[in-house]
Amino acid sequence: MTATAHDAPPSPINEALGLAAQALFISSPNPRVGCVITGPDNRRILGQGFTQQAGGPHAEVMALRDAAARGHDVRGATAYVTLEPCAHRGRTGPCCDALIEAGITRVVASLADPNPLVAGQGFARLRAAGVQVEVGPGAEAARELNLGFFSRMVRGTPWVRMKVAASLDGVTALSSGASQWITSAAARADGHAWRARACAVLTGIGTVLHDDPRLDVREVKTPRQPRLAVVDSQLQTPASGRLFDVPGRELLIYTAAASDSPAAQPLRERGATVVCLPGPAGQVDLAAMLRDLAMRGVNELHVEAGHRLNGALIRDGLVDELLLYLAPSLLGSGGRGMAHWGPLGTLAEQLALEFREHEQVGPDLRIVARVAGRADF
Amino acid sequence: MTATAHDAPPSPINEALGLAAQALFISSPNPRVGCVITGPDNRRILGQGFTQQAGGPHAEVMALRDAAARGHDVRGATAYVTLEPCAHRGRTGPCCDALIEAGITRVVASLADPNPLVAGQGFARLRAAGVQVEVGPGAEAARELNLGFFSRMVRGTPWVRMKVAASLDGVTALSSGASQWITSAAARADGHAWRARACAVLTGIGTVLHDDPRLDVREVKTPRQPRLAVVDSQLQTPASGRLFDVPGRELLIYTAAASDSPAAQPLRERGATVVCLPGPAGQVDLAAMLRDLAMRGVNELHVEAGHRLNGALIRDGLVDELLLYLAPSLLGSGGRGMAHWGPLGTLAEQLALEFREHEQVGPDLRIVARVAGRADF
Repeated sequence: MTATAHDAPPSPINEALGLAAQALFISSPNPRVGCVITGPDNRRILGQGFTQQAGGPHAEVMALRDAAARGHDVRGATAYVTLEPCAHRGRTGPCCDALIEAGITRVVASLADPNPLVAGQGFARLRAAGVQVEVGPGAEAARELNLGFFSRMVRGTPWVRMKVAASLDGVTALSSGASQWITSAAARADGHAWRARACAVLTGIGTVLHDDPRLDVREVKTPRQPRLAVVDSQLQTPASGRLFDVPGRELLIYTAAASDSPAAQPLRERGATVVCLPGPAGQVDLAAMLRDLAMRGVNELHVEAGHRLNGALIRDGLVDELLLYLAPSLLGSGGRGMAHWGPLGTLAEQLALEFREHEQVGPDLRIVARVAGRADF
Repeated sequence: MTATAHDAPPSPINEALGLAAQALFISSPNPRVGCVITGPDNRRILGQGFTQQAGGPHAEVMALRDAAARGHDVRGATAYVTLEPCAHRGRTGPCCDALIEAGITRVVASLADPNPLVAGQGFARLRAAGVQVEVGPGAEAARELNLGFFSRMVRGTPWVRMKVAASLDGVTALSSGASQWITSAAARADGHAWRARACAVLTGIGTVLHDDPRLDVREVKTPRQPRLAVVDSQLQTPASGRLFDVPGRELLIYTAAASDSPAAQPLRERGATVVCLPGPAGQVDLAAMLRDLAMRGVNELHVEAGHRLNGALIRDGLVDELLLYLAPSLLGSGGRGMAHWGPLGTLAEQLALEFREHEQVGPDLRIVARVAGRADF
């Protein structure tokens, strides 16, 4: 057995990472950040917090408030934070200033802010105020937790995670279309937790027409519903569809049709935003759609679509990660596969992945595999 | 974390199970059995051993010899053994008598011998000689290690384990036929260890003609080569095939052709045993073939075949377990699947499995899944 974080002595930065993970369903589109304030001996925790919902306080402010509520004096204390404290005034005041004003004299941060417009400014402002700044501890875990945020900031596109449920032989639906119960209730609930952490769910018109799904988060508790984006080249989404039945959930319909298409009006009336991004051959320009989603603040995009959209995303090189639920069953020949692309002429044309994790979920197996090299940005 | 055998205090029966596992590549067609002889305090190990190659000593005799070689007196000692000591005279003398003669006064055995002709006779003979007999500790692990032997004894057929190497989307070969390097060298070496534990490897004529394989054990050290069985309905195996190039390895060719077919002669001349088991539609009767293999002492049958024979075995309900290597890649539509059977009309017709284990082997994932209910015999 190898040593794990579980075995390691708890360090303030590990505590802060644990707090950051509590923001998983919450902070979108802001990054998941945790903060721990310790006294001079580095052992006693004076205050702790994590990023709240957009518009709410960031982790540093939550930790300062926690310390105050517990009657602790943080002057001369150290703040451990999993991302560079912000120096800009968004909906909240700059965290740097709050730390300086509170008398924090040392900041240990896992990572610099990936936003090229702000990177390093938080650290610079802290240093200018005489605060000692150390950067690096917990960097890998902090980045991994915010890979979508980093992707949006650095690449200008979301981190695209494609969810597929299939039998062990890769069948997602019989040729008759039957597919509802290939994987278990446990796997479906687990899938909802992955939906909940995403900023948006993406599906295709084929799934909308075939399954009439809501694609909201139901099986786990969440304070926010991710947005739903639909690739619907010809605007075939029915205005009576169940995807409209999720109160307050933002709905984006990407189309290759003209923006004044008569089919758009009833969808707009039902609250959808219709975005026209025509690409070649009457299809939606999927790469442009990803840029648009990033502009709208989407960090992690959770794709839950049929084999046609899955295949188009793979063919266009837009998939970063596969979230795969494999049922313990074989379904034989003639069924529908995970993604309609190919056929490949040589093995060199394969989509090369790397396994990240594999874990049994109920009777099924959950596999997370990452497209080789895609996290190197 | 849950407690594992690793955490448990070492008990003599666990030691005996560990010894039994050392017979994995060796004892075929005899069961894998381990034996530990302890002194009256149950702590000091006086002697230990495991089943040797067929015709060699069984575990109990090895343990008695080990104790003697170490100068230990085993009178009044306890023998822990993972299977009922044999009472019959095969190529070796009955182990019961050896234990009695050595003065062993207590035997703790995991399981009764599954052979209905001998079950319980060993225990009866021990008890008749005044030896105290206890049965049960380690039963599950001892049976699991010898599932093939139990299958042969109880069902009259081998335990059929089908090995498949595929991409994550279930593709075993491109439509062009390219397949050699879907999984890694590490997975191939691991696959050879699974070949080595089998009593026989089974393949089909399609694989013989397409790949001209040897299908012997090369990547791991083994004292014996498993037999090779080929399903070759029309006797198309070329007498020049590389499958003949494994000195001393027994080769069985199952055919639906007549035994006096002229095609059989050159194969016999090269040392193959040609077995005629015609079934319907000019194919080999696969169920009869399994019974024949069991008659020849095959406990575990390792299937390494193409999608046609795999599909026929599944269709006929003859597969017990799947040994699956999944490469971290997607190969898209149009490739060859794991097994050519179906298409299914409803999900209820699926081949239902249960996951036994999943483990990364090099860059690949090894999955062992068992056909639901197949071990209940």
